[in-house]
Amino acid sequence: MFNANFSPRFYETDAFGHVNNTVVTGWFETAREPIFRIFTPGMDIKKLSIILARIEVDFVAQIYYGSDVSVKTWIEKIGNSSFNVLHEAWQNGAVVARGTAVQVYFDFSTQTSGRVPDEYRSELEKHRAL
Amino acid sequence: MFNANFSPRFYETDAFGHVNNTVVTGWFETAREPIFRIFTPGMDIKKLSIILARIEVDFVAQIYYGSDVSVKTWIEKIGNSSFNVLHEAWQNGAVVARGTAVQVYFDFSTQTSGRVPDEYRSELEKHRAL
Amino acid sequence: MFNANFSPRFYETDAFGHVNNTVVTGWFETAREPIFRIFTPGMDIKKLSIILARIEVDFVAQIYYGSDVSVKTWIEKIGNSSFNVLHEAWQNGAVVARGTAVQVYFDFSTQTSGRVPDEYRSELEKHRAL
Amino acid sequence: MFNANFSPRFYETDAFGHVNNTVVTGWFETAREPIFRIFTPGMDIKKLSIILARIEVDFVAQIYYGSDVSVKTWIEKIGNSSFNVLHEAWQNGAVVARGTAVQVYFDFSTQTSGRVPDEYRSELEKHRAL
Repeated sequence: MFNANFSPRFYETDAFGHVNNTVVTGWFETAREPIFRIFTPGMDIKKLSIILARIEVDFVAQIYYGSDVSVKTWIEKIGNSSFNVLHEAWQNGAVVARGTAVQVYFDFSTQTSGRVPDEYRSELEKHRAL
Repeated sequence: MFNANFSPRFYETDAFGHVNNTVVTGWFETAREPIFRIFTPGMDIKKLSIILARIEVDFVAQIYYGSDVSVKTWIEKIGNSSFNVLHEAWQNGAVVARGTAVQVYFDFSTQTSGRVPDEYRSELEKHRAL
Repeated sequence: MFNANFSPRFYETDAFGHVNNTVVTGWFETAREPIFRIFTPGMDIKKLSIILARIEVDFVAQIYYGSDVSVKTWIEKIGNSSFNVLHEAWQNGAVVARGTAVQVYFDFSTQTSGRVPDEYRSELEKHRAL
Repeated sequence: MFNANFSPRFYETDAFGHVNNTVVTGWFETAREPIFRIFTPGMDIKKLSIILARIEVDFVAQIYYGSDVSVKTWIEKIGNSSFNVLHEAWQNGAVVARGTAVQVYFDFSTQTSGRVPDEYRSELEKHRAL
């Protein structure tokens, strides 16, 4: 599991007085950054070999300004050329949002998606959801 | 159908050189604003009686800076207390992203979700996907 | 003069119920895009030869969700290696924000700032503030 | 002095490969949040009695993805109805951006700006720039 903490920023609120829904997508992307690093050995993010194919987010409860949000992230499923990432955002002891991201392995040399190499699979396995 | 046009803004790009994925969520929210207006007769957005319960987005192709994006939006399904909104983002003649938003009718007087009132149903029906 | 129109987006509001101040900086950057194009003849924005050195923004009045904002942009002063851009944001017939951006000409071949070339000066002159 | 740390988020980068300039305005707003709390004793941010009148930002150097940014914030000057806040953003041991924010005290009961009350002045004094 990966963990990332976010203090909601004032500009992330909206006129309803809570954190705007669109902000969660950005937090979840940020929570996947340790996964990006697995796939960019030389640390040059422009050479990242995974592409985001799909996201799903369930907005479970209002997210408030003034309390930290903790995003827990797991690898849920590793397929042939893709893998699913699971996110849970917690605030004040309760889940406030849940999401899935489908990442596809992209081989830049052939410009097509391809099988996730074994070296990355074993790293991903370490962060499996139970 | 509703249509909304977006000129990608430079700050919406990311280090990959394309429009960042998180931006699409914001464009889709913006594309739903005519639907928000259906549910806020007095035009006071803070009294909006629908809540976003879920989003799904498929990222079909890279979205480039420098060409306009057109987001087409339909009502896909009207259930008892919720309805599904369908989005398609087009750029240069091709679909670049597709998404669904599940909106739930919320009755502020009882603080619970409730059946979408008939007056709103008939408005939504006018924007049904074929 | 350049003109750019913005419909405030719901996610651009904040908990005060108005458009958040940080949004104005993004609108002003977007309003300078026609100037960026002057400096990127091949239209490849990554080869843009001007750098933002400084911004100033005066927040004159609240900016409301629900009414369009028009940003008028002029070239105010052309120095040796830099030039100043003037912005005014108007909503409902009144100025709501004013700003200046100082852009510096950067010669990538020498990796230093340099004199704004004459071909660009004459283009900038066409958009001078009166 | 107040200190706030920011890990640049991937969506905060732009096509130049660095953190977009507009992001700095948001970080500086976030860095002022401890000051907002001084002026909202009941912690209800909607009752914040200070208004942002002006910002200035000097972009001193590129801000890179992958290294934390520390924003140091001081009170620079306390006038009658306004005070100036000074920000410095540091990355990798160097100043990358500097800024000033002018905040005006606003008395909601009279709907006008007014003298900053003494109780707040003494709090602000504790965070004076040397």
